[in-house]
Amino acid sequence: MKKHGILPDVPLLVAVSGGKDSLALWEVLNELGYTTKGLHIDLGIDGFSQPSEEAVDRFASERNLTWTRYSLKEIFGYDLLEIKKRSRRKICSLCGLLKRQLLNRLTIKEGFQVLATGHNLDDEAGRLLGNLVRHRNEYLDKQSPLLPSTHPRLPAKFKPLYRVDAHEIRTYCKLKKIFPLEAKCPLSRGATSHIFKEALNFLETKMPGTKRQFLYSYLDRKKTPLDSLPFGTCKLCGEPTYDDLCSVCNLARHLEENSKKELDSGPA
Amino acid sequence: MKKHGILPDVPLLVAVSGGKDSLALWEVLNELGYTTKGLHIDLGIDGFSQPSEEAVDRFASERNLTWTRYSLKEIFGYDLLEIKKRSRRKICSLCGLLKRQLLNRLTIKEGFQVLATGHNLDDEAGRLLGNLVRHRNEYLDKQSPLLPSTHPRLPAKFKPLYRVDAHEIRTYCKLKKIFPLEAKCPLSRGATSHIFKEALNFLETKMPGTKRQFLYSYLDRKKTPLDSLPFGTCKLCGEPTYDDLCSVCNLARHLEENSKKELDSGPA
Repeated sequence: MKKHGILPDVPLLVAVSGGKDSLALWEVLNELGYTTKGLHIDLGIDGFSQPSEEAVDRFASERNLTWTRYSLKEIFGYDLLEIKKRSRRKICSLCGLLKRQLLNRLTIKEGFQVLATGHNLDDEAGRLLGNLVRHRNEYLDKQSPLLPSTHPRLPAKFKPLYRVDAHEIRTYCKLKKIFPLEAKCPLSRGATSHIFKEALNFLETKMPGTKRQFLYSYLDRKKTPLDSLPFGTCKLCGEPTYDDLCSVCNLARHLEENSKKELDSGPA
Repeated sequence: MKKHGILPDVPLLVAVSGGKDSLALWEVLNELGYTTKGLHIDLGIDGFSQPSEEAVDRFASERNLTWTRYSLKEIFGYDLLEIKKRSRRKICSLCGLLKRQLLNRLTIKEGFQVLATGHNLDDEAGRLLGNLVRHRNEYLDKQSPLLPSTHPRLPAKFKPLYRVDAHEIRTYCKLKKIFPLEAKCPLSRGATSHIFKEALNFLETKMPGTKRQFLYSYLDRKKTPLDSLPFGTCKLCGEPTYDDLCSVCNLARHLEENSKKELDSGPA
């Protein structure tokens, strides 16, 4: 964290899902003396969102840590199951988009400049593999442990655990008596991110060291991640965007149109 | 082949190992009316090189095709097992280096300008994945179905089967009554090229279409593969090289030194 210039005098908003990564991250930051506040988004997934929130609540209460809760339904108008019903796009991709965008906005709203997330080595290496295999160069440029703020309404984003793998984080949680929600999101079965992680784990088993070497040497060679495209402002909500509408307002409009179509065509 | 400007009036030297890919390639080229000559290198691998050569001989005799045979031991001074004994470097990588270099030289020696090889979709996509995962940018630039000649002593290199996968080639061989050597090289167990192919096959199973999409969109976006580095000349053999010595002479010297050390230290 020193290397990236994020010292304990920088207050951090920590995105906490209730899973092992975000709780381990919060624990470490707290132990290192950072001033933190947790932020949890209730996605409204039956049988998953409630135990997630309970895991966050238990962790924070035991350690006397402050956190706040937002509900996707309240902020955005739809919970995740409603979104899934109204769009043909992959739900994991929509959920990712919303979390990214809303976490940005809520970080600023909560008065913080830096958002810390629990992405680990497997997440980052898997994401890199997926972006390379699908040649998504526009995402490749943004892959970095620290993304500086490029707009007054965008926080810097930091992933302190990007060098630590899932197995190590599980061990850490056991040692520290952290009890994360173990269940996987029931909507994420067959998610492409899981498939790329599996492929990397296969390479790692056959050629130990591949995963770290793959991510680290990519990050070493990469240019600075600063975005050079000029920002505009979303016509509807005023958030920074490259387009007329930001991706959140764009998605909301798309879902609304699909709802109308459903109403027009009557009950199925 | 039309797209790449290699029309039937271009005589082709075909590298034939005796495996399914090279024999299928030779069959197709012959059917399309190309003037071809086969070239086989005997690598001197016990129990593998002889049946490889027999497969080439049977295929060529049945079709009345011309081919020529070279022996690694005779050209280079060591067969593959002797090289394996004398070097700690991975044998698959040394074998690849020698085949690349010697095929270049022998193509020119045989009076041809273009070398055709049987690399298929799996070979090319696996190689691309390996080069991306290990960030071997210097090799990435050279990955192309057609590498034009960049020096009077280097042939153009062409891989007509780069869009056809291993399974399709096996089917083609059955239909055309081609009987390639089915055995894998006994020295190649655990070769990294196999591992990357396996990882890609895993991705293909989970997300059909990934393999082709991965290779094709890489090739579409890539700049021209022309090499811009100036060539020098090998001090020992006069072949084109970027260094004082070409990679073949360099390897030969390395093996010789190791042989001397062995002699100096007496029998084991």
